[in-house]
Order: sequence, then C-alpha cells, then structure tokens
Amino acid sequence: MSKSAINVITASGGDESDYLFPAEAGPRKLARELYESIRQLPIISPHGHCDPQWFATNEAFADPTSLLLTPDHYLLRMLHSHGVSLETLGVGVAKGDSAFDARKAWRIFAENYYLFRGTPSELWINQVLRTVFGIHESFSGTTADAIYDVIADALKQPEFRPRALFESFNIEFLATTESATDDLAYHKKLLADPWPGRIVTTYRPDNVTNPQFEDFKENIVKFGEITGQDALSWSGYLEAHRLRRQDFIQHGATATDHGHPTAQTENLSAEQAEALFQKVLSGKQSAEDEEQFRAQTLTEMARMSLDDGLVMQIHPGSYRDHSPEMFAKYGRDIGFDIPQATDYVHALKPLLDQFGNDPSLSLILFTLDETAYSRELAPLAGVYPALKLGPPWWFYDSPAGMMRFRERVTETAGFYNTVGFNDDTRAFLSIPVRHDVARRVDCAYLAGLVLEQRLSMDDAFEVARDLTYELPKKAYRVDG
Amino acid sequence: MSKSAINVITASGGDESDYLFPAEAGPRKLARELYESIRQLPIISPHGHCDPQWFATNEAFADPTSLLLTPDHYLLRMLHSHGVSLETLGVGVAKGDSAFDARKAWRIFAENYYLFRGTPSELWINQVLRTVFGIHESFSGTTADAIYDVIADALKQPEFRPRALFESFNIEFLATTESATDDLAYHKKLLADPWPGRIVTTYRPDNVTNPQFEDFKENIVKFGEITGQDALSWSGYLEAHRLRRQDFIQHGATATDHGHPTAQTENLSAEQAEALFQKVLSGKQSAEDEEQFRAQTLTEMARMSLDDGLVMQIHPGSYRDHSPEMFAKYGRDIGFDIPQATDYVHALKPLLDQFGNDPSLSLILFTLDETAYSRELAPLAGVYPALKLGPPWWFYDSPAGMMRFRERVTETAGFYNTVGFNDDTRAFLSIPVRHDVARRVDCAYLAGLVLEQRLSMDDAFEVARDLTYELPKKAYRVDG
Amino acid sequence: MSKSAINVITASGGDESDYLFPAEAGPRKLARELYESIRQLPIISPHGHCDPQWFATNEAFADPTSLLLTPDHYLLRMLHSHGVSLETLGVGVAKGDSAFDARKAWRIFAENYYLFRGTPSELWINQVLRTVFGIHESFSGTTADAIYDVIADALKQPEFRPRALFESFNIEFLATTESATDDLAYHKKLLADPWPGRIVTTYRPDNVTNPQFEDFKENIVKFGEITGQDALSWSGYLEAHRLRRQDFIQHGATATDHGHPTAQTENLSAEQAEALFQKVLSGKQSAEDEEQFRAQTLTEMARMSLDDGLVMQIHPGSYRDHSPEMFAKYGRDIGFDIPQATDYVHALKPLLDQFGNDPSLSLILFTLDETAYSRELAPLAGVYPALKLGPPWWFYDSPAGMMRFRERVTETAGFYNTVGFNDDTRAFLSIPVRHDVARRVDCAYLAGLVLEQRLSMDDAFEVARDLTYELPKKAYRVDG
Repeated sequence: MSKSAINVITASGGDESDYLFPAEAGPRKLARELYESIRQLPIISPHGHCDPQWFATNEAFADPTSLLLTPDHYLLRMLHSHGVSLETLGVGVAKGDSAFDARKAWRIFAENYYLFRGTPSELWINQVLRTVFGIHESFSGTTADAIYDVIADALKQPEFRPRALFESFNIEFLATTESATDDLAYHKKLLADPWPGRIVTTYRPDNVTNPQFEDFKENIVKFGEITGQDALSWSGYLEAHRLRRQDFIQHGATATDHGHPTAQTENLSAEQAEALFQKVLSGKQSAEDEEQFRAQTLTEMARMSLDDGLVMQIHPGSYRDHSPEMFAKYGRDIGFDIPQATDYVHALKPLLDQFGNDPSLSLILFTLDETAYSRELAPLAGVYPALKLGPPWWFYDSPAGMMRFRERVTETAGFYNTVGFNDDTRAFLSIPVRHDVARRVDCAYLAGLVLEQRLSMDDAFEVARDLTYELPKKAYRVDG
Repeated sequence: MSKSAINVITASGGDESDYLFPAEAGPRKLARELYESIRQLPIISPHGHCDPQWFATNEAFADPTSLLLTPDHYLLRMLHSHGVSLETLGVGVAKGDSAFDARKAWRIFAENYYLFRGTPSELWINQVLRTVFGIHESFSGTTADAIYDVIADALKQPEFRPRALFESFNIEFLATTESATDDLAYHKKLLADPWPGRIVTTYRPDNVTNPQFEDFKENIVKFGEITGQDALSWSGYLEAHRLRRQDFIQHGATATDHGHPTAQTENLSAEQAEALFQKVLSGKQSAEDEEQFRAQTLTEMARMSLDDGLVMQIHPGSYRDHSPEMFAKYGRDIGFDIPQATDYVHALKPLLDQFGNDPSLSLILFTLDETAYSRELAPLAGVYPALKLGPPWWFYDSPAGMMRFRERVTETAGFYNTVGFNDDTRAFLSIPVRHDVARRVDCAYLAGLVLEQRLSMDDAFEVARDLTYELPKKAYRVDG
Repeated sequence: MSKSAINVITASGGDESDYLFPAEAGPRKLARELYESIRQLPIISPHGHCDPQWFATNEAFADPTSLLLTPDHYLLRMLHSHGVSLETLGVGVAKGDSAFDARKAWRIFAENYYLFRGTPSELWINQVLRTVFGIHESFSGTTADAIYDVIADALKQPEFRPRALFESFNIEFLATTESATDDLAYHKKLLADPWPGRIVTTYRPDNVTNPQFEDFKENIVKFGEITGQDALSWSGYLEAHRLRRQDFIQHGATATDHGHPTAQTENLSAEQAEALFQKVLSGKQSAEDEEQFRAQTLTEMARMSLDDGLVMQIHPGSYRDHSPEMFAKYGRDIGFDIPQATDYVHALKPLLDQFGNDPSLSLILFTLDETAYSRELAPLAGVYPALKLGPPWWFYDSPAGMMRFRERVTETAGFYNTVGFNDDTRAFLSIPVRHDVARRVDCAYLAGLVLEQRLSMDDAFEVARDLTYELPKKAYRVDG
C-alpha cells in the first residue's frame, strides 16, 4: 500500500490486529501466519456499486453523513427497526436542503450505535474510523461530534479524495455496475483520463429484462434508441443486448450481472420467445409470464457470453422492497429487501441443459438462502464446468456468514469452484476492511484444516493466495 | 436468591459450575466472568405453561412421577420412541387410579435414562436433581428408588410448596397461558391474595381463532356468553376479543400468544371477513378457508394490540398431533407435534403492510424452522420496527440450538431486536436451570465475540445483562 | 486387525494419527482417549455398493485407475467441473480397449489433485495411499507415475486380493446392494464357499417400484418370471416381492433399500393400488401417478418388513442424472445426481399412520437435505418407535457433515435413535478410512460434550462403542 497520511489497515498494528482469528493460541498463530502471507496483496473488487463519478471527477466527499451513513442500507434498516425515521438520516432529502442537519443525523446514529453490537456494520465502521481516519475512540453519543469533526476535516484534505483513497487502498481492479440504458459517461471520462486506476463497468440489464421494473417498456424503447435497433421486436431486442454488451466491454466490463427474484431459467424457441416478449410488452402479462421472460433472458445472456466472453453473475432470491409503504416514501435500497427460499436444482436446469457442460462459459452463482450451499450450490458447482460459486452475499458478508460458506461448500465443491471475495458495496471507504475480513476468515478456516491435518501448511499458503488474488482474477477474467 | 433448605443453583459450586462454557481456558475464563455478573439476576419468565392453580392453592406436589415425568412431553416422546407405552408412564391414567404405580413408572424412566444422553432433558433433570433436591448421584435404574424417596420426602416439606419454590427460584415475573374461554379462576384468586409473587395470564385465543380446533363453534358460542356479545357475528366476535383482552389485562396479562400451523396473515375488508367467518362457522369451509380465517385473526389481534398495548406473540410451524392413533388414545401434548418448513417473508406481509412500520406494535416471532433465522427472521426483525425475535423454541431450547440462534441472528438483527429467554415450560422445577442454560450459552457466545475482538468487554457485560433481564422486561412490557 | 504386509490404519502411527481431532490440547486428549477405546473394533458395513464378484472370485484388481479412479463419482464430478473429459478417465471406455491409457488417466488425476483440497476425497485417497499401500509421499503430478507403479505392483500380491484385504480391514459384516431382478449369482457362490467372510445382499427393488426407471415394464415381466408369479397383476406383483425378499434373506440380507426422488408414501386400498399399478404399466401415467406408485410401494415394503423382519432403508431426495446430455453419453453414477429439498413430515405420514408406532418395524431414514435434521428427522425419529436416522449420507459423509449431523440431531433424537455409520461405497479400499473418519468425528463430538460437562466420561466411552459397533449391529439386525 502507498504511504500516506491515512492510517491504512497494514499500519493498524497492536493487538487488534488479531481480530477475527481463533481464540486459541495454536490456531491463532497459524491463522496469523497465513494472513501475513497475503495481507498486502492488492484488492481485486470484481463486483460492487461504487459511483464512477467519484473517480471521474475526483471531487472531495461532502461530509461524514452523506458519505458514511445516508447511503448505507445496513445502517438505515437497523436504525429504522428501532423507530428512527429515515428522513432524520437524510433519506429522501434533496441535496443541499438546508433544513437537513447532517451533524444531527450523525449524532442520532452514534447514540444508537449500540444496536450494531455483534454485526458486521460495527466491525466495518470501527475499522474505517480507525484505519482510514486514525480514530481510536469508541463511537458513541459522547464522541459523535468530535469524530464528525475529524472526518469532516479529513475529507477536505487531498489524501481523502477518491483517487487518492483508491491508491492508498491498494485496489488493483474495481468494477462498478451500470444499467443497460446507462450512458456510461463517467466511465468514458475515466477511459480518456491518464489516471491509471482500473475502474470498469458491469452490464446489469435488469431494467430491460425484468417486466416488473417500473417503466419497463419505456426502458426498452430507450434501449432501442441507444443501440439503433428496433428493440420492440425480439430479434432487435437481442441485437440491442449484443451491441450494448460491446459498449460495456469497450468500457472495461468483464462481466454481466443479473438480480432476479428467483434463479429461474428457461429455454424457449425463438418463436415462443418472441410471443412471450410481445406479451410482456403488452401490459397484459401474468406474473408467470414475467417470471418466464426473466428466465428466458438469462439463457440468452449465457448464449451471448459464449460469444463475447463476458462472465455472467446471477444474484437471485431477494424479495425487493418488501414494504410498499416505505417504497412509496423512499424508493429502493433502504434496507427493505428480504431474502427468500431459493431453488437452484430445478430453476437452473433449462440453462444448464443447454450450456452447463461448456467450460468456456463462466457463470457465477450467489444466494441469499444459505440452505442451498451444501444441498444444491456446492453439488452443482462441483460438477458443471460452467458454474462457480460467488462468495457469501449481503446479509452473509460477515464473519460467521463467511465461515458457514466455507464449511458447507468446501467439502463438496472444493476451493477451486469458488471465486474469492466480492465486497459488493457502495460504501467505498469500507472496501479495505471488507476484504480484510474475508482474508482473515479464510485464514482462520484454513488454519482449522491444517490443525485437523486435512491440509498441509504449504497447500494452505497457496490456497490463501488463490482465494485472495488468483481466483478472482481468473474467474472474472481480469486479465482478459 | 432467598436462603432456604433447597440447594439452589447459586449454591451448586464445584467444578460442575463451569458446565456449558467453552472448553478452552481463555474463552472459558471470559465466559465465566460475564456469567458471574448476571447469574444472580431475577428470572423474568414472560411465556410459559405453568398451572396457576399451583400458586393459587399452594398445595404440595403429589409425587415425583406426576411432577417430573408424566407431564413432560420431551420425556414421553423419547421413551415412546423406544417402545415404552405411555400408560406405563401415567399418561391417560385417571388421577388417583390405584392401578397406576408411580414408582414403577419412575423406575422405567430411570432404566431408560441413557436414551437422553446429549439431550437438554438430561441436562435439565440432572440439574433439577442436583440443585433443587441436592441429589448428586447419577440417575439410573440402580438409584431410581432412592432418588424417588428423596424427592417424595422433600415434596412434603414446606420449602417445596409452589410458592416457596417460586421465591427460592428468584422469579420476578411469571406468565402463564390461558385460552379465550378460560374463567381465570386461579388468577382471580391470586389477584385477591396478599402473596406478592407476580404471576400473570396470557391471552391465547387459538380455540376461537383456529377452525380446526375441536368444538370450534361451541367455543365461540361460549366466548359470546362470557363476554355478553353475539360472537357468531363478525363484529360481535371482534368485540368479544376486545372485552376478553381487557379481562386478561385485569389479570395481569401483558401479552397475547398465537399458535398456528403457519405464519400466514391476511388483511381482508370487514365484508370479506364477515363472509369468511360465516363460512368457517357453517362447517362447509375448505382447509384454505380455515387457513385464511386464522390469518385474518392475526391481523385483527395486531390491530387490537395497537389499541390495548398487549404484546403479540406468534408461535407458528408445528404440525400438531402428527399421529392420529396416538391423538385418539392420549390427546394433545404427548410429544407428537413435529416442526415443518415455515415461510415468513410472504406469510407476514399482509399484517406487516398494515402495521409493520409502527413502533408502538410489539410482535414477537418464534420459529421451529431454523433455516428461517438468517434467511427471513433476522432480516425482517432487523428492519420492521414492529418485529422482534423470540428466543430458540421447543426443540431448539438447548445449548447447541441457542448457539445456532445467536450465530445466525446477531449479525443481521443485532441483540436489540431479540427479547431474551423464554422457558416456555410447564415443568416448573426446571425453570431455574433453563434460564441458567440460556445465560451460560449467551455468555459463551459473547466471550467468543470478545476474543475475536468484535465486542469490547464493557459492551459484553452490558449485553449480557440486557439479554438476561432488561430486554425481556422491555419487550414484554413487564413494567407496563 | 490381522497382521499383514499391508500398512493398516492401526499401524499408521506418528502424529498424523491425531487427524480430525480438535485443535486444542484438552479436547484433543479426550477425543484421542475415546478413540483409542474403539479404534480396533471390527467394521460393520451394513449398507454399501461393493461388487460381490470381487469376493466370490477373489481375482486381483486390475490396475490403480480402474480400481481407484474410474468408478469414483466423487472424483469424476470434480475433474469434470474443471473441464477434464470423462473418457480420459476411462468412463464409457470398453473394458480392455487398448486405446485407453490408464496411466495417463492417473496422471491427469494427479495433476488436478489440488482441486480436492479440503474435500473428503482427498482425505480418503491420502489415507488409502498411506495405510493400504504404505505411500507417504504427497500425491501430485510429479509423484503420479511412481505411485502408480507402487500400487500396480502391490495389486499383483496375494495380500491385495479382495478377500485378503477384507480380512486385513477387519470387516465383520459387509452388505452389498442388488436389484429385485438380480440373479445373486456371486452371493450364491459366496454362500457355497467355505471362506468365512460375511458378505450379504440387500434388497433394492427400485427397478420394479419406480416407473421412471428405463425398462420398467420389462423389469416387472422379468420379476414375474424369476418368481413364477403373474407380476403384471397387483397381487402377483406383491407376491413376487414377498418371494424375492425370501430369496434375498436366503443370501444373507437383513435389509431392503429404497432410493426414491422424494420420501413420499401412500396408503391406498388394494383396489386403488391395483388401478394405479395398471395405469403405470399402461405407459399413459402422469408424473403424479408415478410418484404415487413409488409412494405406495414404500408402504407395501413396510408391511412386508413386519412379516419377514427385513430392516427398511429409505434414501430419498436425489435428483438423479441432472444433465440429460451427460446421461445420454455416459449413463448413471458419474456425479450428476444433485440433492433437492425434501419434506418428511407430510411425505411419511401415510406410512407412519399405518405402522409408525410399531416397534417391530425398523425403518432407517436418510437425507440429502441437511435442513431436515433438526426440523423434521430428529423430531420424527425421536418419537416414532419404527423410525431411526441413518448417518450423514453422500455429500455429507465428511468431517464437517458428520459434525453437523450430531450437532443437529442429538439434542432431539439422542444417540439411540441413530444407527452408527454406513460407508455406502463401491470404493472398497476406502472402507477402513471412511469408518475411521466417522469414529474420529464421533469421538471429537463426544469429547466436546464431556468438556461442556454434558456427558460423563464413562457414558462417553459407552456411547463411542455403541455408535461404532453395537448400534449398527442392532439396527440392521446383523445377529438376526
């Protein structure tokens, strides 16, 4: 990592540097040894939601609240669960609205910080304060103002501009996520900029593949305009995808991403698909039609991936915007997405029947249903050449969640059908600590295998490096 | 705890006092330190099935078998699974039937006690023998008679009367559970009695909300008589609930409880609800109608809770009386209730859409489907102000069950969307040990977080106290 | 174990003998002590897929590849998942095809051996190399040829013939599995042979109970011929089962086994069953008919078991041959069977309503859906006298899988509603290590209970012996 005024994780030192390692001396020593061998490796962040504008314009972040609190749905949900209104935290507040008091929001967060005990949010926030801002005091109502001031002051310094942080974080590769109708303006700007930071886009076409999306038809019309295709015909629609994927590839994309309510895939004939497409455009479709349409688009995406080489990600199983009242008031991404039971063994079959045994397809699966790890996901990824398993996602991007993933997946799928860690975050400042947590948990898991004499120490060193660095680069085709 | 001739848990001493703590010296020391800070806190028992008659009349318990064996469905089920007939154990035997040999039943239990190795039943029984009766010998066929005699003798002593035990157990608050048509006679008697023990009722209206209940219509007729309402009309039925809830509040109730096969809720118009009500009263309803009716009553109960302040509990997911043969022979509660997969994310939506974001509703959810902890329950309770998670229930009220609960729930819902421990038992003598087990497991979990540097020791002390004492009092509105 | 040139597990010595024991010194010491008390107990293998021909003819195994690699679906699936073609590994290659290079296949396996890190396959292979062949070098591309040669040479020695290995492995009882239309020729030969090794058959009638089986009707015709019954009538079909079961009993069988997609049972009248049978024979049946027919046969099997005393096993929940492309190319058992969510609480009810409370039925349940352990299986087996739980199966026959089984099952079902270990394998050489893994994990689990003061050391010694030796003998009626 580059030297800077920022207290980067590698400089944190002290006994807190053993956090997340096993309690017992023997396993702890082994875990630490493994960790030391990988902790300085660069960060590969192949899936996430950072805003490319930050890096394209490199403007200073505004204030602690709008940087660390208001956009963080983990924080919003917990505070709301204890009756804190989201407006108070800046949600739904127009930018620059002078009635909104950012410092007061910060105080409320601090006063309720005890709610986060035992959660990864507390871990992330504590480590961001400590390692990025050099704050070692406990965060609470009494320290809220002082900490606010330290952060606010720091954000004015050049070392805390987005690009400087990106460099000090030792990020080698960062993928953002854009919709099928995004103009990629900031990615264009980054392409033209001599700054060497590698920030790429990811093709996420949900707004033109999911008929439940608001403005679905309007999106498709716009999709046609952007690509010069008649996107209201099935063949034009497919061609529009092909062209947009090329656009995204031009802006660095190595992957697509698909966030559907289920993992359902379908394999219709062109005629059936055209008829279904017209139905979902008509506004007279049923929920089943919508599901089938989404399902068909996944198989089309797989087919295109075989042509253009984009890695395909599926993030299924979230019941989005569970509370209509809150959605009406505040819109998406405020913490009201709830996991639901998700079937893979039947849902993926149409796609797998077609492409599952082709090793040149790379399809990375995620889940919000941990019961699928040992029952369906590891057995599927452990046999189909096209499948790999993404890391524990969202609610399970946590120390215990990560450990459950390794314990349930490894014995059937091994390490080499997994793809390393994703931070999957828009909380840019937390990227180093999130990766650090994953590295530590993996080392703790490996230390356990070594102590049970199930893995040699030499192999453990190699696996640690692979999980941290080699697998994500390979799985996401970072080097092309 | 009060001093008495009884060997209470705090006096047990010796090395067995480390039971359930982690094996390793470091974690064990921390867990013990946390535990020492809370072990003498009074017991809050906000949900259970003790008989109010015990405390109202304060008569001596009859004998070891009818106190400790015959009513304990955990014991019955295991013994039956190895071919012991339930009659032999006193089930279905008329009170005072001289043909039944209580001592022989006790011996059979003792001879088969090896079946319980590794189960919480063994833990509870061992601790009851040791800490309540001062028996340190192993329970087995050879010691069965001697132990029977010690207990039988003790039960004749004044210190073993229900009220004396209640006091020596250091119970601050004990809730029993009564049906909507119960006359609350013993609670009335307790109200009028100067004895200060706080024993309250809980409103459990399943016999008038679940059309699958035997005598459903007769119950509703009785319900109308008790409340002076025309309970066969929907509006009269609702008014009868309102009045009965007030009755229960007069007898100390702070909560309602609902034991349905699923967590389904519904939000019908008054007209639809009236029509449905008439249908389920007609005897011509389908299973779906019955499900929808139960579902609608949950939403009505939530609405009433917002008016009268009663905390609402839902205990869903038990397939009651799985064996029709055994139900016909012996009736309910003999160990034949089996958990089933339970959905919350869709089932609770109608109720949550209506009341979920209202922090003045307190709805405590339970589950018999552990897969829901991390997938649905923690995410729901971690965002909806109205929801809290009840402790591990029934089969999971066990050391490993409790640890799984904390490990799967905490990272998403934190500690403060949970409500502390419920013993949920009719086995009065086991109440102290059940709470002790929960305290020990929580301290073991907290010690783990401290050692992983995820929680400061100061915070751990505070959380330990909150989980043991403050959260149950607050969640169940024990102080009004 | 008998003394021989083979490096048997008991002679392995060295510090690797602590493999799979807990990392911490205290628990490790206890686990080892428990293990020492049982490690020399004979192997009871009551369910598996060894070929009786091996023992009937006692011919030398051909070569390392056809013995250890080609028939092992765990190995095939992982190698295929990384793009290794199954032909290269000898799958679908005609016996004696000179174009197939067994040594080259072995090399490819060795070069890809890193894929198996952390899997039980690595554990099994490493222990087979070490304890059966005395090979202590790491298996990899560089050692592949040398190791191939050592094994190939050993296989020519008399001590490596099937019977000699059987003896040196200290196997007391080995059950194979044959279909309802098998001629049992090799079992006949074994019966007539003075060699004392006890190798028995198991009645697995899936090919005449599952209408989805290829050649279902032809199988039933053959079934009728073998038994001299009109097996195309329902009563003749049932009589054919009765007679074949007697045949199997003559060849040592103590059990039946049923591998169905679900655990569904049915309890039709004879008339309904006859009509359903004719429908599934007609070729005009629906998928639901097929399911119902399989379901009915399970209840018939239970009824017959009550007559002839055969223990009944159900192995449900595998989606067999998930990839039609691979099935068409290579047939069954190449690693493409995928677990699916499995219900027991409703599915088993028809059978349990009829026979569940009869202690003279012994029905052993398995699962590929670990969520059922604590939710359905332990509660069911913990109350129904007819039910017992089989050990962790297939993907969960692994150290972490076994630990999850004990942790989720024991608190509700205890140890004595489980039946000890099954190796369930056709990989004969791995039988000792598979049993050794189960013994070690059980001892590690028991050591944990002892250290948490939930089990006395005396009881732990007894339980360890019961799980290893007494329970499988009793549950499978090995002594009649």
